[in-house]
Amino acid sequence: MSVTAPLGFRAAGVAAGIKAGGARDVALVVNDGPSRAAAGVFTANRIKAAPVLWSQQVLRGGRVFAVVLNSGGANACTGSEGFQDTHATAEKVAALLGDSAGEVAVCSTGLIGERLPMDALLAGVETAAGQLDRDGGLPAADAIRTTDTVSKISFRRGSGYMVGGMAKGAGMLAPGLATMLCVLTTDADVPADRLDAVLREAVSVTFDRLDTDGCMSTNDTVLLLASGASGVTPDEREFAAKVTEVCADLSRQLLVDAEGATKAIAIEVVGAASVDDAVKVGRAVARSNLFKCAIYGEDPNWGRILSAVGTTDAVFEPDRVNVAVNGIWICRGGAAGDDRGKVDLRPRDVTVTIDLSAGTDTATIHTTDLTTAYVHENSAYST
Amino acid sequence: MSVTAPLGFRAAGVAAGIKAGGARDVALVVNDGPSRAAAGVFTANRIKAAPVLWSQQVLRGGRVFAVVLNSGGANACTGSEGFQDTHATAEKVAALLGDSAGEVAVCSTGLIGERLPMDALLAGVETAAGQLDRDGGLPAADAIRTTDTVSKISFRRGSGYMVGGMAKGAGMLAPGLATMLCVLTTDADVPADRLDAVLREAVSVTFDRLDTDGCMSTNDTVLLLASGASGVTPDEREFAAKVTEVCADLSRQLLVDAEGATKAIAIEVVGAASVDDAVKVGRAVARSNLFKCAIYGEDPNWGRILSAVGTTDAVFEPDRVNVAVNGIWICRGGAAGDDRGKVDLRPRDVTVTIDLSAGTDTATIHTTDLTTAYVHENSAYST
Repeated sequence: MSVTAPLGFRAAGVAAGIKAGGARDVALVVNDGPSRAAAGVFTANRIKAAPVLWSQQVLRGGRVFAVVLNSGGANACTGSEGFQDTHATAEKVAALLGDSAGEVAVCSTGLIGERLPMDALLAGVETAAGQLDRDGGLPAADAIRTTDTVSKISFRRGSGYMVGGMAKGAGMLAPGLATMLCVLTTDADVPADRLDAVLREAVSVTFDRLDTDGCMSTNDTVLLLASGASGVTPDEREFAAKVTEVCADLSRQLLVDAEGATKAIAIEVVGAASVDDAVKVGRAVARSNLFKCAIYGEDPNWGRILSAVGTTDAVFEPDRVNVAVNGIWICRGGAAGDDRGKVDLRPRDVTVTIDLSAGTDTATIHTTDLTTAYVHENSAYST
Repeated sequence: MSVTAPLGFRAAGVAAGIKAGGARDVALVVNDGPSRAAAGVFTANRIKAAPVLWSQQVLRGGRVFAVVLNSGGANACTGSEGFQDTHATAEKVAALLGDSAGEVAVCSTGLIGERLPMDALLAGVETAAGQLDRDGGLPAADAIRTTDTVSKISFRRGSGYMVGGMAKGAGMLAPGLATMLCVLTTDADVPADRLDAVLREAVSVTFDRLDTDGCMSTNDTVLLLASGASGVTPDEREFAAKVTEVCADLSRQLLVDAEGATKAIAIEVVGAASVDDAVKVGRAVARSNLFKCAIYGEDPNWGRILSAVGTTDAVFEPDRVNVAVNGIWICRGGAAGDDRGKVDLRPRDVTVTIDLSAGTDTATIHTTDLTTAYVHENSAYST
């Protein structure tokens, strides 16, 4: 399970005292090779945290032998001192493991705008290095949690190789990723450029289609590390499918654990003139607070869905749009359709289907409802 | 006050039984001339309610002698029958007043997707026509309320003429207008093309800079009617200023009455390379649920502000952005600045100043906080 499911990886998760309360807050993942091929996808936010700026440089080389992660502080908007803190963390890992800091990726998550407590962090890194283990995947996944109520881990078996992963993120899930950190590992033998292509494609149809509150983090990072320890060069399509499956599984876990949510909503857009149009429409609906409040109230308010669709420039005719909620077509031809009283919105899973009648393309965006608990969680605590 | 402050206008507001509970729900505003020059600005939503489609046609002629408005139903997403209902309403007004339906504008507000109770509405229009009065501005403003807790009215005196207005709207305030209806009147003598230019400019810096929940309605309409009854041809700049002042005053009233809000937030963007950039940045912050929750919690969380700024393509360097909340520069050069403990967020009015250090342009976007009351109001009731 988790990042240590594939051969060639060790991990650890320890409590360094960055978080109050003694929970685990530093994780380390090490790739023992023989390959160190790696790829990364980072936040599209132009305000990027120091560890993102650092790791982007590292990934340009296409090689990663270790990833160090901390919760309890994002190290974002911390100026050049913050960047030096990230650099020092990578140097510490390199010194402990006798290797180059230029192949150490760094990820941080937590409150923006505050420096990390470096003494505690570096001591924690040293402890983690001493605990690196083939069974360390679970404690590592635990150490990267912030408001996550559970650890998120996944793995899939390919033909002679494995793909594993861990992720964190419970709010701020948005396009161009989400406040999420994700480390994927595989013991397949795949060169960095191929990992990059596979990762970008997998992310674009999984994490990028998760939009719980429309907010985009400064720290989002998804890494894919290949050890090659299985000795297997995988079939390209199978490998891409396995990586995508792990990403989809982790996305689903993030969605279900989103802050304060009571519903997991899939917005399926069908009959679109292009996938871009379908994504655009799905995202507009996913970002409508009025729609999200209605679902919280178990009200199949298709008028709020159409209002959101109408804000996009997707190809459609207003009088040809159909909308179903949980399978009941309550809007047909842009007007009232079947009896809305037939819609059962009590289950946690909600499916909204929007038929644009403009083509054959489709995309699904996943979101959650907007609840009083979300507002409470994000107003009562600084995160 | 209201739409009957200028000479040449009569109005009425009556209870037609469209709303449950017997509140006023039909308003009529009549321009007795001698001029009938008029202009209108409508929702940018591509899903437009029947009365918007109708009134857009009417305004193409540049002449309006009456506006009929109803609350209790939006007549949006109601198909060709809904359009016929709007047409019938205009015809009813024309028949009662012995004039042409082609110069009767129609506005509706309320739940999307349901047909209007036409018998009640047409009977109400007849009652309203019988009650038209120079003192009818207040009952008319009352009749267009939905979740508005108070009527919104305003007027300004020019040199020998007046500008008056009424508006409704308490949620869904967003760019390209808001679920808002607004009727402005003046007894100045101004041709339709000039009214159009003045109205577009006034709306672009007032209603269009109000963004309470990012949702855009299907029914938004702002009309400006000139009777010319004062006989005064106004100074162009003074007239534009008066119309803008009335729009700004009504915008402010809409903001303060926004659903469930506890804070009125002004997001001032300064140092922008263009006004478009300033508007874009202000809007991105106004749409961040995390930011809006933080203000509700009286937490000066500048990290959430920077995260939102970073999602735009405005010209700025991340390490040159400064942010003040209520005058305290808590973020300087993209990192922590003055002590955030000094920020007093207890007052209802909150000012966020974002200095992009990229130019000299500026714009202010007005929004509200995101509260548990907003979620409650929009989940417990269909609107």
